[in-house]
Amino acid sequence: MKVIMDLTVSPFGVGLSVSPYIAACHEIFAEAGLKTNLHAYGTNIEGEWDEVFAAVKLCHEKLHAMGIPRLTSSIKVGTRTDKEQSLHDKIDSVKNKLA
Amino acid sequence: MKVIMDLTVSPFGVGLSVSPYIAACHEIFAEAGLKTNLHAYGTNIEGEWDEVFAAVKLCHEKLHAMGIPRLTSSIKVGTRTDKEQSLHDKIDSVKNKLA
Amino acid sequence: MKVIMDLTVSPFGVGLSVSPYIAACHEIFAEAGLKTNLHAYGTNIEGEWDEVFAAVKLCHEKLHAMGIPRLTSSIKVGTRTDKEQSLHDKIDSVKNKLA
Amino acid sequence: MKVIMDLTVSPFGVGLSVSPYIAACHEIFAEAGLKTNLHAYGTNIEGEWDEVFAAVKLCHEKLHAMGIPRLTSSIKVGTRTDKEQSLHDKIDSVKNKLA
Repeated sequence: MKVIMDLTVSPFGVGLSVSPYIAACHEIFAEAGLKTNLHAYGTNIEGEWDEVFAAVKLCHEKLHAMGIPRLTSSIKVGTRTDKEQSLHDKIDSVKNKLA
Repeated sequence: MKVIMDLTVSPFGVGLSVSPYIAACHEIFAEAGLKTNLHAYGTNIEGEWDEVFAAVKLCHEKLHAMGIPRLTSSIKVGTRTDKEQSLHDKIDSVKNKLA
Repeated sequence: MKVIMDLTVSPFGVGLSVSPYIAACHEIFAEAGLKTNLHAYGTNIEGEWDEVFAAVKLCHEKLHAMGIPRLTSSIKVGTRTDKEQSLHDKIDSVKNKLA
Repeated sequence: MKVIMDLTVSPFGVGLSVSPYIAACHEIFAEAGLKTNLHAYGTNIEGEWDEVFAAVKLCHEKLHAMGIPRLTSSIKVGTRTDKEQSLHDKIDSVKNKLA
């Protein structure tokens, strides 16, 4: 089952700069070979359900190991049976309407 | 790794009444022995990471099998290493401040 | 335009206990006369669009005034034209399917 | 009070293609002069609190006028008092850590 995910990781108890932790998760996604697209409030991820969620779990484990005591991930995860759709398809679909 | 989750399942392409689909997911959570609490915009779930996410995946698979072509789950998932916390602890913590 | 909202306020840069800040927001909702229901990962709120969003803005202003430098609210807001629906209607609708 | 928002609009009861409705909201954001960035699961928006939320309300009103009976927006909205930050600053902050 293929998914398109949007992931926002929020570390608590570590000051105001969260970008080092987001970067640590991106290394995990890259090692897992997942397609990602970073935006200002999270990361789009494309892949198989089990692989994508395994990467999210690794991200929680790595950030706790880096000293973060409390962590919330906000996730949107979409699956569909009517057609295959990629990250770029979703964006193009709106852009074509705007053109 | 224990999690507290908030899950909102949004089925697309099936009319306006989504409650039968939410109910179908709740049967899965009950069979999995997960603690849940239904609210007006989703469901709180408490359990081990792998068990909770396996139930979310089963929920997507079941709803697609029921004929839903497109499905988005909106998930908040929290983990912490500083202390154990249950669904009720989180609510009581705020209620005590309000009292 | 009536809304049903789910609100999760996440303060950053203030340690691990967020319940005093959630409680501060609940005082605002009570003063505004809004119907609310606290759950383990947020608060359901029912009311008119302008009143509910004014309360969310007051909550951000109050928490910054309490010393929080960085704040994210995660909001789900639903509107519908086909029928009136309350917080309790939404919950009952699922519970009836489960019964 | 300046905000950085992430907005995902979910129309229910209108079939599977939601891109025409997302495009209708983008016209509102453009007319309001708001900076936006479209991604695969929503739109980043930057602006003053009142202007951004007025645009979100207009978007709900327009989509209901287009015939959508039920609509949920999923919103993340961030405010901070420690520094000014733009959509691009947030992305650059992570990219610099990855470089």
